[in-house]
Amino acid sequence: MFRSIATVSIAGTLPEKLEAIAAAGFDGVEIFENDLLYYPGKPADIRRLAQDLGLAITLFQPFRDFEGGPRDRLAANLERVRRKFALMQELGCDRMLLCSNVAPDCSAEIELQIEDLGRLACLAQQQGMVVGYEALAWGRHVNRYRQAWERVRAVDSPALGLVLDSFHILALGDNLDHLEDIPAEKISFLQLADAPLMNMEVIEWSRHFRCFPGQGELPLVEFTRKLVEKGYTGPWSLEIFNDGFRATPSAPTAQDGLRSLLYLEEQVAATQPPTPELFSSAPLPESRQIEFIEFAVNRQEAENLAGWLRQMGFSLRGEHRSKAVTLYQNGAVRIILNQQNDSFAADYRERHGASLCAMAWRVANPSALLQRAQDFGYPVYQGQVGPNEHRIPALCAPDGSLIYLVETPVNGGEAAIYQDDFHLRDKPTRTASELEGIDHLAVAMPENALKSWVMFLRCVPGFEPDGEQLLPDPYGLVHSRVMHSRCNGIRLPLNVSQSNATLSARTVETYHGAGLQHVAFSTGDIFQAVEQAKAKGMQLLTIADNYYEDLAARFDLDDAFIARLAQYHILYDRDAQGGELLHVYSRPFAEGRFFFELLQRLGGYAQYGAVNGAARLAAMRQLR
Amino acid sequence: MFRSIATVSIAGTLPEKLEAIAAAGFDGVEIFENDLLYYPGKPADIRRLAQDLGLAITLFQPFRDFEGGPRDRLAANLERVRRKFALMQELGCDRMLLCSNVAPDCSAEIELQIEDLGRLACLAQQQGMVVGYEALAWGRHVNRYRQAWERVRAVDSPALGLVLDSFHILALGDNLDHLEDIPAEKISFLQLADAPLMNMEVIEWSRHFRCFPGQGELPLVEFTRKLVEKGYTGPWSLEIFNDGFRATPSAPTAQDGLRSLLYLEEQVAATQPPTPELFSSAPLPESRQIEFIEFAVNRQEAENLAGWLRQMGFSLRGEHRSKAVTLYQNGAVRIILNQQNDSFAADYRERHGASLCAMAWRVANPSALLQRAQDFGYPVYQGQVGPNEHRIPALCAPDGSLIYLVETPVNGGEAAIYQDDFHLRDKPTRTASELEGIDHLAVAMPENALKSWVMFLRCVPGFEPDGEQLLPDPYGLVHSRVMHSRCNGIRLPLNVSQSNATLSARTVETYHGAGLQHVAFSTGDIFQAVEQAKAKGMQLLTIADNYYEDLAARFDLDDAFIARLAQYHILYDRDAQGGELLHVYSRPFAEGRFFFELLQRLGGYAQYGAVNGAARLAAMRQLR
Repeated sequence: MFRSIATVSIAGTLPEKLEAIAAAGFDGVEIFENDLLYYPGKPADIRRLAQDLGLAITLFQPFRDFEGGPRDRLAANLERVRRKFALMQELGCDRMLLCSNVAPDCSAEIELQIEDLGRLACLAQQQGMVVGYEALAWGRHVNRYRQAWERVRAVDSPALGLVLDSFHILALGDNLDHLEDIPAEKISFLQLADAPLMNMEVIEWSRHFRCFPGQGELPLVEFTRKLVEKGYTGPWSLEIFNDGFRATPSAPTAQDGLRSLLYLEEQVAATQPPTPELFSSAPLPESRQIEFIEFAVNRQEAENLAGWLRQMGFSLRGEHRSKAVTLYQNGAVRIILNQQNDSFAADYRERHGASLCAMAWRVANPSALLQRAQDFGYPVYQGQVGPNEHRIPALCAPDGSLIYLVETPVNGGEAAIYQDDFHLRDKPTRTASELEGIDHLAVAMPENALKSWVMFLRCVPGFEPDGEQLLPDPYGLVHSRVMHSRCNGIRLPLNVSQSNATLSARTVETYHGAGLQHVAFSTGDIFQAVEQAKAKGMQLLTIADNYYEDLAARFDLDDAFIARLAQYHILYDRDAQGGELLHVYSRPFAEGRFFFELLQRLGGYAQYGAVNGAARLAAMRQLR
Repeated sequence: MFRSIATVSIAGTLPEKLEAIAAAGFDGVEIFENDLLYYPGKPADIRRLAQDLGLAITLFQPFRDFEGGPRDRLAANLERVRRKFALMQELGCDRMLLCSNVAPDCSAEIELQIEDLGRLACLAQQQGMVVGYEALAWGRHVNRYRQAWERVRAVDSPALGLVLDSFHILALGDNLDHLEDIPAEKISFLQLADAPLMNMEVIEWSRHFRCFPGQGELPLVEFTRKLVEKGYTGPWSLEIFNDGFRATPSAPTAQDGLRSLLYLEEQVAATQPPTPELFSSAPLPESRQIEFIEFAVNRQEAENLAGWLRQMGFSLRGEHRSKAVTLYQNGAVRIILNQQNDSFAADYRERHGASLCAMAWRVANPSALLQRAQDFGYPVYQGQVGPNEHRIPALCAPDGSLIYLVETPVNGGEAAIYQDDFHLRDKPTRTASELEGIDHLAVAMPENALKSWVMFLRCVPGFEPDGEQLLPDPYGLVHSRVMHSRCNGIRLPLNVSQSNATLSARTVETYHGAGLQHVAFSTGDIFQAVEQAKAKGMQLLTIADNYYEDLAARFDLDDAFIARLAQYHILYDRDAQGGELLHVYSRPFAEGRFFFELLQRLGGYAQYGAVNGAARLAAMRQLR
């Protein structure tokens, strides 16, 4: 596959962009005209720089408002084309993108448009150039690819083909069947862009919210597969207009771009005879569940956290054989407190304060997942190991924390790592109130990190996104997007605050983006679990009486049940299918950074109680 | 006028909101249900707090999805109403907002809807309540106010009226003539919200982008005037859903809200017999032009800046009689460098670094404008004066800088302030290249300050907004909104960066929001002015050759002219009417914070060359 990207997709000056694009591993680059316009050197300098970097210049773009324009401007327009062709010669690029005309005064007459395109094709052929004609979704008269094809076919010149851009086609929900009418050799170029589904004018949507394939919700795989099946073998080129990307360092954005193409290639090939290139990516190992989570803490923080854990029914399960590391357990949930000096955890704590420095996933095949991360250009971690200690491979998450990969134990037994590394105490006897597992881990992050997290979690472990939620904090809105493993055993709500004043934003800023906000534990009987926790001194987040008044108005719940919810400060939600969620929060601790949640899902409830998010956030604010 | 605001309009917990609303001077408040829901005390506590603060609770809102709902839920819905009425009793509020039903399963049958509304009215009447029915712009079957009125009229109960919300009506571009059919006494409540014009789904637009009257572009004055004319005498209440307001401290937002109502009242009354209340606001004195600008600097900075000014053709015009203050002049432009200790300027410099601490406007009637600022609750400044010194009244701009108000001198002569305060040198002899005036001052600011600036500039000096521009900095987008005086003698582009990485954003952050970015001087002959400046050593911002290549392709300019533009690094723009702009930039100085622009407008060009903004930003980046 020949992988390309438009310079408009990333931030910086033109040389900075080319360097980042080459470093990420692209084969080619589209030069966006404005990037060249403001570059102080000559086009030939860019030609040389691209050559030195091993990048082919795949496309010069865009040329606008040509076909069907006013007759008295035709000569000037052709002169404009000539100048751009001369510039492309200097640049060493033989392919130009022509966008369909958007000018209010352009002619709707198809014959006239074809005539103009014919003139352009003729000029291009003389100069050894190829023009690719693209139907902009907001083109004045030509806004569907089949209209563009109708005109290109009529001109019938080797110097005029089509540019297909996934955004312009998929954003309109256009019918992909017409692609079958177009011979592969008439597709001059393929531009790929994804986008979240949004209710706005398509031009605004296109110019500000495009994203890399896999970060959005358009059916890129189906679209691209159709083109591959029909024999398109040219470049796959990313053309992303995204306000966030414009404001983010170019190198990581370019890397994510390349990963998005690798991921798309893999998905497109999935039902195809795999090409040799794709063999290097192992099939997706499914993530099973969270084996443990690990906090980086100092001694005082370890004591405080252990106190909270004991109140939640955890007990000390073991001490590490050679390090200042302790293991706590309640039912199926294990939490490690790491206060070892000169360790990854110590380094992490240095930068991020007391924080979640690692989690461990149970997976079917750790080494395949590790290989997969490397194939996508993500760093992996091989930590120090002491005598008798288990060596656990780990992925590096986008915030620098670790994701250990632990093989699923046979027969559901305890993983060998605990035996090998810890002086273990006996398992506590099972109780009805013990925890069933970690339901979800909510992670706060700065806005520009969200798309990188989504890319990482999609590409490597094959997580899938849930819809986005908007939670009103009293001091600003928080966007929450949940990524979950396919089996739903691991769920990570990713939270981004729009405001600087929310708890989430302050945590992220103060602790350099290290952002665990809360851990939600699942329980089979929330009343019993809360009763136990209260008995052990756990401080619950107090929910206002008015909330329960309103519950009574909203749901047909009996008064005794509501009274019981209110007594334990348990929040309630019910979905359209009758599934129910009961959940309760601890007061935040560690300077308000963390809190715990206990929850019980009933009747297949699959959401996260976002409707209660405002109640939680307001209750937390009352504490401050 | 009875002035009210919905709690949802500002940030904070419910008690914080009420305090900010009372402090701003509102008479009443709408309680948004969720604010109460998450308040940990009793509704009666809020009733008491509002009483203590002197706020009437004007409305409880919203009640949703009632009329025409499924029959099997009618009893539960009525029970829901009963509970809310009981809560309103506790709250001491007798008015409830009912939004038109949005549920997919609600009935389109108007008779059924009327029947349900009749039941509701009956219940309300029994309880001494009034329900106001509002057509949400996205209501399922009822989304126009005349549909709501049709139903209210049919029910014909004193306990059922209409709520009119300017956003829901004006966002749809609804016909206001139907308002004439509605008797004033059937309008239970009036909600006011403005919004910028945006191409997006109305529900998203409404929930995230509403703003105070005067900050947006909806025809609020016409709408409100119609209601006043027909005899509506109830509260005017702001209901603003704005993501920015949610993330901004509540006190200044509430203040801006009150100002927006004062301003709207004034405009509505403008063609009406004025009410006694409105006499306190003086008529708008028109702003004429910028008399001088003043920089707060230390000694070193003063020397550097003076060097730049000399290169731009300025000469030392005078030294202050008693302070370390110097006056520079070039043609009609005067610039003051203030390095006096223990002064406003010194305090300003302490916080904001070298910066524009003041500007002076020539106005017809300074004391009327000063009075006007006070009427709108803005602080004014009366500085220290020494012996023989002129005392100049000043407004305080939203960033804390001063706007001195200077009377327009008779016969266009020099203002007395210079004679009184400075040892003046003789006026330099006039030259062809001298400056004609300050064309515009561009001010960078954090995003949350923009709406406050707009409010200030509209209310006090009666400035008007131009459309918004989006400038692509290589490291993120910059929004620019120009506010100009009615005579166009003062123009202030207000710039907000979306990204943290742009020059604009870094200036704003490092210097606490003090944000002059550049001063544009107008000249009658730009080639001569640039020639002079170059001769004096001025360092021009270098524009890439590629820019001029592209100019040649875009415009029918002769090659010699383009070569001349390129020689002087002059940028070019032409508007649709043939008006032309020629403009050139200095290199940035003072750590890249400031730069100068020289410009010449030809043929009535009225814009700011935004199309060249990207070229400027890219050229500046090349310097870093």
